[in-house]
Amino acid sequence: MPVLSADTLRDAAARLLRALGAHAGEAEGVATHLVRADLRGVSTHGVQLLHMYAEFIRDGAIRPGAAPSLAAESASTALVDGHWSFGQVVADFATETAIAKARATGVGLVGVCNCNHIGALADYTEKMAECDLLGFTVANSDAIVAPAGGASAQLGTNPLSFAAPVGGGPPLVMDMATSAITWGAVVRAQTLGEPVAEGTLLDAHGAPTTDPTTFFGPPLGAILPLAGHKGYALALMVEVMAGAFTGTGCAGEMGETPQGVLVLAADPARFGGAKEFRGHTERLLERVKASQRVSGVEEILYPGEPEARREAERRRSGIPLDDAVWKALQELAATAGISL
Amino acid sequence: MPVLSADTLRDAAARLLRALGAHAGEAEGVATHLVRADLRGVSTHGVQLLHMYAEFIRDGAIRPGAAPSLAAESASTALVDGHWSFGQVVADFATETAIAKARATGVGLVGVCNCNHIGALADYTEKMAECDLLGFTVANSDAIVAPAGGASAQLGTNPLSFAAPVGGGPPLVMDMATSAITWGAVVRAQTLGEPVAEGTLLDAHGAPTTDPTTFFGPPLGAILPLAGHKGYALALMVEVMAGAFTGTGCAGEMGETPQGVLVLAADPARFGGAKEFRGHTERLLERVKASQRVSGVEEILYPGEPEARREAERRRSGIPLDDAVWKALQELAATAGISL
Repeated sequence: MPVLSADTLRDAAARLLRALGAHAGEAEGVATHLVRADLRGVSTHGVQLLHMYAEFIRDGAIRPGAAPSLAAESASTALVDGHWSFGQVVADFATETAIAKARATGVGLVGVCNCNHIGALADYTEKMAECDLLGFTVANSDAIVAPAGGASAQLGTNPLSFAAPVGGGPPLVMDMATSAITWGAVVRAQTLGEPVAEGTLLDAHGAPTTDPTTFFGPPLGAILPLAGHKGYALALMVEVMAGAFTGTGCAGEMGETPQGVLVLAADPARFGGAKEFRGHTERLLERVKASQRVSGVEEILYPGEPEARREAERRRSGIPLDDAVWKALQELAATAGISL
Repeated sequence: MPVLSADTLRDAAARLLRALGAHAGEAEGVATHLVRADLRGVSTHGVQLLHMYAEFIRDGAIRPGAAPSLAAESASTALVDGHWSFGQVVADFATETAIAKARATGVGLVGVCNCNHIGALADYTEKMAECDLLGFTVANSDAIVAPAGGASAQLGTNPLSFAAPVGGGPPLVMDMATSAITWGAVVRAQTLGEPVAEGTLLDAHGAPTTDPTTFFGPPLGAILPLAGHKGYALALMVEVMAGAFTGTGCAGEMGETPQGVLVLAADPARFGGAKEFRGHTERLLERVKASQRVSGVEEILYPGEPEARREAERRRSGIPLDDAVWKALQELAATAGISL
């Protein structure tokens, strides 16, 4: 298993993106997001996505050089047209727009349409938290999750992310799929020849399975929603916020669009006070971390804390990449005429 | 089991509230919210709450006649000071404020502090959906839920609600606790002498239990978060949005305040278009409802649909009240010097 420094991996990813047609700024931006996910241990949203992005570029679903623009704007709202640029470029633009509006008016609500895959949502909400704002982002995706009681895929895995600043520690950052398991985790289990947890997958006939190969078929099965009816309701919320509200469309009628996105930034200075916001959040997390623990649990962490620790460790010791991921990247590079 | 018409029950609840000290408008407003919950089958948020409200009034935590006011305001934001009025009165005011701001500017984000218990969140988000807006509301509450891996209560049951308009059907309305079970459901199980589901409760020593009596102790145990780490993360999100951001405070340091509240209304006309918003949502729900079903499931419903059906049925046939609930209300009325 190769272990690469973050700089080396980012340079390799950026060079590969350039070779695939990305402009210099795009390549740097997208590579930085992907490597950040690998640093934080979220390898499903790391450089292994470059394969999918190469296909999107080849098929015209990502258009290098296209720049996002404001399709509509008011003091506290905006609709961003991504013009099929890289999703990360579009989501960075939407996030910066939401931050500027929140600073100016107390709240910024920004929808995104004509957008490709934006990677890990945590990067965007964390950026808002770093600006001392409340950050909230949802993104829908095409149909792979069954409704509660359903046996066919009608909803995306539909992640939901939230972040808030924490003094003296990493930001509180939640980034979770509203499905029982992510697509990336099923792909990984299949690659490793391992079963997935019970209660996460149905086969194409609606029967429960733990075997990724049975799930993939063809015909393809469906992922189950998180915790039954509640995850189903959350997935619908994300579909409606990110897909219907932005005009992108919901799972099942998104056409070539991988994701609709909705970004909310809000300034505590207009509400309970910026200092009070931090104070309340920090004391909450102190109490949570000092909670009595159930047997066998050594430490209680808050969302964002394990990822921040892994990032610090991997910035020191490097990022371990699966052999298969590294080999596939080298092959992709070869087809693009470069060597990593 | 008595079966009362909605009008009869609302009149009884309003008379009782008047006898407890509520002004006429407050009594009508709060009674309407409570009976709506009973109509929709959410009896934990129905007239059985009048006991708790009577205690709040007696203790000065609810101050009849106090009117909510705007502690801070800008074009798209507001902080509502509830002045310890009835929570429903305050939340109605906050919702109307958010709706007006969303209509005027595209988005309204309204925080609430100094607020009592607001009842079922669905009433507020549904109101926004009836105005053709996207509605989102969160409320925190005092510590009764353990963090993932924890054995002591540090978080509220922290409900989260969302609604969107649906033409030709009831609004899509989600209203869910982020805990594995609600406080009200545990109380009800104890009243009926029934166990709760596994994986929902810990006793005071951190051991799993399905026995409400063991949970209540004293010492009191803790409710588990929904689906482990993801429900824990959602509960933290609600604490921070509703408690920290509004200045109310989070579970464990809310003092006499039952709930902090954050209300978001957003106008699709400034994003993907109002007509498109409805169209995308309606087609999504059509696909979801037409989904293949797993064995034994006769129909797939969307959140808000079962409640709307129950409401229609109970408006025709009346609301069945538990004998114990009706008897307790009559006793409460007697102590307030009236007869129901």
